[in-house]
This record gives sequence, C-alpha cells and structure tokens, in this order.
Amino acid sequence: LNSKYLFRWLGLALLVGVMAGSASALFLVLLDLATSYRETHPLIIWLLPAGGFLVGWVYHQWGREAEGGNNLLLQAIQTPSSKKIPLVMAPLVLVATVLTHMVGGSAGREGTAVQMGGALADQLTTVFKLRPRDRKMLLICGVSAGFASVFGTPLAGAVFALEVFLLGQLRYNALLPSFLAAIIADAVTSAWGVGHTLYPVVEVPSMTVWTLGATLLAGICFALAARLFSVASHAVGNTFKKHVAYPPLRPVVGGLVLALVIWSLGTTKYIGLGIPTILASFSTQLPSHDFLVKLALTAFTLGCGFKGGEVTPLFFIGATLGNTLFPWLPLPLELLAALGFVAVFAGAANTPLACLLMAMELFGGSIGLYAGLACAVAYLFSGHTGIYGAQVVENSKH
Amino acid sequence: LNSKYLFRWLGLALLVGVMAGSASALFLVLLDLATSYRETHPLIIWLLPAGGFLVGWVYHQWGREAEGGNNLLLQAIQTPSSKKIPLVMAPLVLVATVLTHMVGGSAGREGTAVQMGGALADQLTTVFKLRPRDRKMLLICGVSAGFASVFGTPLAGAVFALEVFLLGQLRYNALLPSFLAAIIADAVTSAWGVGHTLYPVVEVPSMTVWTLGATLLAGICFALAARLFSVASHAVGNTFKKHVAYPPLRPVVGGLVLALVIWSLGTTKYIGLGIPTILASFSTQLPSHDFLVKLALTAFTLGCGFKGGEVTPLFFIGATLGNTLFPWLPLPLELLAALGFVAVFAGAANTPLACLLMAMELFGGSIGLYAGLACAVAYLFSGHTGIYGAQVVENSKH
Repeated sequence: LNSKYLFRWLGLALLVGVMAGSASALFLVLLDLATSYRETHPLIIWLLPAGGFLVGWVYHQWGREAEGGNNLLLQAIQTPSSKKIPLVMAPLVLVATVLTHMVGGSAGREGTAVQMGGALADQLTTVFKLRPRDRKMLLICGVSAGFASVFGTPLAGAVFALEVFLLGQLRYNALLPSFLAAIIADAVTSAWGVGHTLYPVVEVPSMTVWTLGATLLAGICFALAARLFSVASHAVGNTFKKHVAYPPLRPVVGGLVLALVIWSLGTTKYIGLGIPTILASFSTQLPSHDFLVKLALTAFTLGCGFKGGEVTPLFFIGATLGNTLFPWLPLPLELLAALGFVAVFAGAANTPLACLLMAMELFGGSIGLYAGLACAVAYLFSGHTGIYGAQVVENSKH
Repeated sequence: LNSKYLFRWLGLALLVGVMAGSASALFLVLLDLATSYRETHPLIIWLLPAGGFLVGWVYHQWGREAEGGNNLLLQAIQTPSSKKIPLVMAPLVLVATVLTHMVGGSAGREGTAVQMGGALADQLTTVFKLRPRDRKMLLICGVSAGFASVFGTPLAGAVFALEVFLLGQLRYNALLPSFLAAIIADAVTSAWGVGHTLYPVVEVPSMTVWTLGATLLAGICFALAARLFSVASHAVGNTFKKHVAYPPLRPVVGGLVLALVIWSLGTTKYIGLGIPTILASFSTQLPSHDFLVKLALTAFTLGCGFKGGEVTPLFFIGATLGNTLFPWLPLPLELLAALGFVAVFAGAANTPLACLLMAMELFGGSIGLYAGLACAVAYLFSGHTGIYGAQVVENSKH
C-alpha cells in the first residue's frame, strides 16, 4: 500500500512539477522582459487604462470561470468533488499578469504561479480519472509546485500548500506529495536556467529580553499592516463592483487613476514587483511612507481588476515597514527588513510555518528563532480574514 | 482581546520557560556527571540490577500516577479536563533517568525533559485556576520548553509540542505560546551556562534525480528502523509485564541481562546517550550492526522499566544507519548520517515538521530540502503506531 502510494505520487508530482516549474520559468522570463521594457519606457504608464481594458475584456470573454483565481483553487481543495479548474486559467493569468506588470500595475507573482500550477495539475484529474481525495492532493501539489518554483523556496512552497486552505490547522495527508512537487518544480525552473532574487544572509543578535520584546512589537505592527492590506483590497474590489457594472470597464477606470497617481508620484519604485526597493530596505534607511504607498497602490491595482499575486507586494510592504521601525526598536536594520518581509505575508495569508521556512531559505537558518516568533505574532494579530477569502477558519486564533 | 491573550501567555510562557529551562540545565549537568563517572568506572554496569531495583521501587512507591510518562502528558493535552499531572513526576523522572545513565542503561533525554516541563507547567493550572483549554495550551508550553531546552533546538521544540499529540494534524491555537516557551526555556538553559552538543554543518549536493531517489530510499530504511524500534519497545514492555508480576523486579531482571550483554560486547559505545558514536557517524565508516545493537539495547532498557527518553537513541540509530547506507547510495556520508539522525525520530514520533526544523537548527539551513523529503518519507512509511502510544490518529497517513 505504501509503495503503491509512493510510486503513484512520485509520478504525479513529477508531472505537476515539470509543468508548473516550466510555467514558472516562462512566467519569470516574461516578467523580466516586461519589467525592463517598462523601466526603459516610462511613458507606458499611460497605457494603463488600455491594458486594463484588455485584461478585463479577456477575462470577461473567456475567463469567467477562472475569475475566482486563488479562491477557486482553495475551494476546489476544500471540496474536491467540485468542477474541474479550467485549463484556460493558466494562459489567461499568465498573459494578464505580464500585461499588468508591463503597463505599470503594482502586483506580485505567487497568485499567478499558483493558479498556473493548480490549473495545469487539475488537468491530470481527468486524464487519470482521480477520485476526489486524490484530486485534493493533486491540487495541493499544484499550489506547492507553483509557489516553490516562482520564489525558489521549495520548503516554503510545500508547507504553504498544506496550510493555506484551512486557517488554524495543517493536515499531513499530502505531506510527501507536496514536498515532492515543490522540490521537482523548483529544480525544473532552475534547469531552464531561470534564477531568483538573492537576498542577504541576515546576521542575528542573540535573543535577550529586549530583542524578544522588540520582535513581539514589530510582529504586531506587521500584523496590522497585513490586516490593513486585506481590508483595503476587499474594500477597493467591492467599491468597483458596486459602482462600475461592466467588468472590463473597472480596470480602465482604475488604470486611469493609477496612471495619474504614478505620474504625480514621479517614481516607478512603487509599481511592478518593486524588487530594487525591497533589496534597498535591507541596507539603507528609506522614507517611512513607502509601505503605505505600496499598500495602497497594490490594493488598488488588484482590487480594480488587474491580475497578479499579492505576495511580492507584501514582501515590499513588510520589508519597508521593518525598515521604518528601525529607529524605534533595538534590532538590526536588515533583521527588521527580513522579519517584515515574511511576517506581513504570514499575517495576510495566515501561513506562519511556510513563512518561517521561507525566512530560513532566503535569509539563512539562523534567522529562524526571530522569524518564528514574528510570524507567530503576525498570525495571531492579523484577524480571521486574510487575503484569501475562501480560506476556511478551522481553529480560532485565540 | 489579542493583547490580553499576548500578555497572559507571555507571562505563563515566561514562568514555564524559566522552570523547564532550569530543570533541563540541572538535568544536563547531572547527566554529564553520571556519564563521566560511568566511563571512568566501567565495572559499575554490574550495579544495573541494583539500580534497576531502585528505579522500579521508587516508581512503585511514589510514582504510580507518574508511571505513564510521556503518554500521561499527551493524554492530558488531548483531554485537558483530566487529573493534574503530579509534581512528583519531575523529580522522579530526573533521578531515575540519571541513575539509568549512571549504571549503564541505553536511554535518551527528551522524555525526561518533556515530563519535567509538563509536570512543572501543570502546577500553574492550580495556581492560576486555568480552564481546560488554557491548561491544554499550558501543557503544550511545558512540552515545548522541555524539548527545546534539552536539545538547544527551540524551533523544533515549539513545533514538536504542537504536532506530537495528534497524528497527522497540527493545530495553531497554541502557536505563539509554544514558540515563546521554547525560546525562553532555551535561553534560560544557556543562561545557566549549560551548552549542547555541536554537530557539523552539513554540506549538501544539489538535488538531482539520483540524490532525490537516494533520499527516498534512505527515508524508507529510516522508517523501517523507526517501526522496528516502536514494535520492539512495546514487545519488550509487554513481555516483562506478562512474566514479572512485581514491577520493581522487572528492571532487576532486565538490568542483569543488560549487564551480561554489555560485558560480553566489551564496549560502552552502545550505552548511555552514545554521543561519541553519533559524532563519529558523520565522518568515519562504522560497523553496520551498530544501529541494530543500539536499537535492541534501548528497547530493552526502556521496556524493562529503566527511565529516560527515546530520542537520543533514535538519533544514534538513525545516524549509524545512515552511515551504514553510505556505500550503497550516492549521497555524502555526513548527509546520510544527518538525515538518519532526524528521520528515524520523525518516523518514530510522527513529527516530521519538528524534525525538519531540528535538522536545519543542528546541521545548517541548507540541509532543509533533503531533510524535509527524508522526514516526509519516514513519516509515511513508519506506520500508524509510534513510540507514543497515546498519540491519537487524526488523519490517516495515506
């Protein structure tokens, strides 16, 4: 029984890993091209309304079933007897995200990679005629593979897929398949020659009463930022739905506002992924409003109908918020930036263990103690509604 | 509500951490003394029957309620309305374990530290008149603090306490309290000037089809060793219970057999904790029967009624088994030893995530990928009965 299970899931994880890893590789390459093009052609932001219309119209024509995005995937994992995830979700979200980044929306990557991974994985359900409980595990593999390969963090990807669909609980049924899919997908992306952003290895002071207290305080701030982001995203989305009836028109209006805001800000640092600013937050003191501007622009971009993930903007918000806290707390700058990087995400997605592992994968193993604490506090204080509306609250936080 | 929760658990975790961390410090010092004394006085093994009688008699007189050990704690966590853990458990298990090690039993430490942590923590239940759901969290803190401080691995301790009482599921209710207790207890043990064994930072090859396959195969071997250990321990225990009616007599008979076996083996490498052999397994090829001899001696020592933990012997069994696999698998020796170290324990205790974190804490962050895979496989293949009989199967493994 065990060996049959192992071979079955080794095979399925291999297929999912190869598909999701390749999709992530393609996505990362296109994203790089789009970002470079945007940075060398700053006037492209005036195409935001046009790009918005394209994204909105394409989804309206072919993507109504895929509109749910991450939430559709989470629901399918929770109710694996539900309808198949349409394959069209993968190309749609890929094109729409690249377009969003090219014209200057503020968005991330994980949603796209996870949706591509999940949609590609679910095609195997029909091919192999899988029963609902196997489909559930397959979808977990898809999420795991997508997340792992787009960030180059297989451990975080494997655990993220296990902990994201239920709030307050992690089940082990899909443990090995999730690890296999994550490791294989990450290796496949690397095999395509696509690399990931390198972050500094963070040096960590020994734990004292002061650093412990400071980490708790910082964690609370990160939780509040996460909460603010979730609330703002939902609010923007609802406002657009209420006031603009025709869906493709929403990102047009949103795009126009965004273009005006970006033009008046006079900088591109808050649009796209924002990797240069994330990296800078580890070494230089940045303006203290950075995290708020990024938060507002991202909530607006995604709320009005552009596509992309939330996670890289959450990294940005967290790292710059950590940076802002530096003068007030007795912790090194790079540690605060690194803790914010993972903890805001932990609070917004309610995935503290994945974020602890991500911190250790990106910033070195010795950050674990601080990261675990910061993520646990951020999880506790971020409320019961996160960025994924479909997450089911299985255990209350307190 | 959140801040009240935070302050409450910061206070309780501080108390538990100081008590459990201090108890672990005392325990580690006494264990060191007992081990040195035994190594310089090899004839002491002939006191095994006498020491066994003392351990058995003391438990028979004062410790009947504490006899359940780890299982008693797990049951109290599962059913927090049950009877208080007797305080006497802490001194009893401390004295009995040190005695076991001094006369030459083969045993570990985690059971002792966890029982001291749990018993000390549970006294606060009465002091603060805690409700059952708070008592549950308090006991989790006790387990977390004990484990974290005895091994110097706070992340592993925090997650171990969350995942050990249910098989196949991890709940987040006690996430922050568990991390706080672990971090504080570990800091307290260090503040007493007590250090931990340092293991080598393991260099890891990049993941290929071959190393992935080899890790899966090794993981299966580790799972089988874990299963064999659980079965052997239970079998020895049941045999003694069946054939020797008077409990204090069981470790006398067992001690006599142990003394004869140790004498005929002519070495002390398989008794006590076995740290020197564990360290050697990272660098030198060792005899391939090492893991079996240690497995048999430990199952026998604990099964006949001596006291101590299972985990350090499981580290020994795993590290030497990994060492034995070296000629057969395309992985570096130190990686195989390190994977066995954590994976046999992961399989026997059904705690794969704690063991993944432990690997990263002891051997450096880059082992994470291999350790995650090995622990997941070991978990999958080790069956539904582990070393903790009281563990409740919440989710089937496949």
